[in-house]
Amino acid sequence: MSFIGKLDAAADKNQSRLCIGLDIDLKRFPKKILDSSDPIFSFNKEIIDQTIDLVCAYKPNIAFYEAYGIYGLQALIRTTEYINQTGIPVILDAKRGDVGHTAAAYAKAIFEIYKADATTVNPYMGHDSVEPFINYHTKGIFVLCLTSNIGFKDFQAADGREPLYLSVAKHVKEWNHFGNCGVVVGATSSTELKAIRAIVGDMPILIPGVGAQGGDLKGSVQHGGKRGIINASRSIIFAPDPRAEAKKLRDEINRFSKIN
Amino acid sequence: MSFIGKLDAAADKNQSRLCIGLDIDLKRFPKKILDSSDPIFSFNKEIIDQTIDLVCAYKPNIAFYEAYGIYGLQALIRTTEYINQTGIPVILDAKRGDVGHTAAAYAKAIFEIYKADATTVNPYMGHDSVEPFINYHTKGIFVLCLTSNIGFKDFQAADGREPLYLSVAKHVKEWNHFGNCGVVVGATSSTELKAIRAIVGDMPILIPGVGAQGGDLKGSVQHGGKRGIINASRSIIFAPDPRAEAKKLRDEINRFSKIN
Repeated sequence: MSFIGKLDAAADKNQSRLCIGLDIDLKRFPKKILDSSDPIFSFNKEIIDQTIDLVCAYKPNIAFYEAYGIYGLQALIRTTEYINQTGIPVILDAKRGDVGHTAAAYAKAIFEIYKADATTVNPYMGHDSVEPFINYHTKGIFVLCLTSNIGFKDFQAADGREPLYLSVAKHVKEWNHFGNCGVVVGATSSTELKAIRAIVGDMPILIPGVGAQGGDLKGSVQHGGKRGIINASRSIIFAPDPRAEAKKLRDEINRFSKIN
Repeated sequence: MSFIGKLDAAADKNQSRLCIGLDIDLKRFPKKILDSSDPIFSFNKEIIDQTIDLVCAYKPNIAFYEAYGIYGLQALIRTTEYINQTGIPVILDAKRGDVGHTAAAYAKAIFEIYKADATTVNPYMGHDSVEPFINYHTKGIFVLCLTSNIGFKDFQAADGREPLYLSVAKHVKEWNHFGNCGVVVGATSSTELKAIRAIVGDMPILIPGVGAQGGDLKGSVQHGGKRGIINASRSIIFAPDPRAEAKKLRDEINRFSKIN
């Protein structure tokens, strides 16, 4: 099934726009998990088993797996294969971007080796750097647009010209021939989110930055709309009770939206 | 030794501004190599052994290794460890970029797992996404500025405002507190290279796009200056005689420059 089909089905079935970011950190793992033979996969499996009926997607960020070397990436593959069996889509947050033939190698790694349903890409190098990803028609491609970190103002929203993030949103709208594109917009900027939603129509918008990064949940839900995917990572996976935390956020999202 | 120290020493010793891109592709490997037990490392080792006195750096692009899964990344690590013994610096072309704590995980992977002396980063997310790399003071950080692919015009050089690539060059100049920054400028744009060189002073400039991509070698050498690192990948490593091809390009670069 296509990413967008899986996403809509999961959102509908679980009445949820919540995506859980699997941003692992061995220093924060419980001792019991650290003592297991495969701590990264064991940790993820426990989170997944506890939250499978509460989410519309899972989003591991590959950086945290790469930092643990070959073992980290092997555990990432086991994690995505495990999620693949559940019907919930996996968004592998990788933010890749390179010239065409190199981007094709990255796309192969992300969709065929790591078995993701969707990924994030960086637009800096323009259309031909994103195209090899888009050419996987059944996969989802979230193009970085406006991010929630402090550095967003250096280039994405620099003064004195049409903000770069609006130009990116307009380009992604044009690139969306196969209906598999989306954008990433941080939860810290709900006025800008509204403007971007107006440009990109009903594309999925991945909205990180609530939870540990403290973004504006209400504005993100309202302006993100039905396909606004709210991502929280550390605030859920390292909570004393991840299921309770995920349920609380899922329900809060639904209260702010028109779903319920 | 720091990246910049290794780079200058190798350039001086080998009288070379040539960097060879180790962009592997099993489909183009000789049968003898394919039949070996570790084809990726064997291929790279042969290229390195043949060209070690002709280059100032080697530049594997991690995408091509990721595309071969866990084995590809294991072979990448063996390759960088092999190059590390020679004194020639390794630039791991990875173009990463993410929020601060995620960028820190990427930096750890690149410098501590993959053992690179330098890397390329994407500036789209601004200063805090680049800072964790820069904080490795002895490592080299090449920030993408103006690239040689066709998509450069989508954002980097869009009309109607100061070109983004000039803004990036100015920001990198400000970020260079530890003297370990550089920029990436494609060989297709020598007028722009001249303008960027004027901004960034004596920073290293990594210049891909000669060779298979057909960039302007003479302009790249002249405007790139002493620390203009000319990269060629497929045109050398898949040549019938890689050493002859590397020597030819090294000597051509030197003819165009004032070194010889």
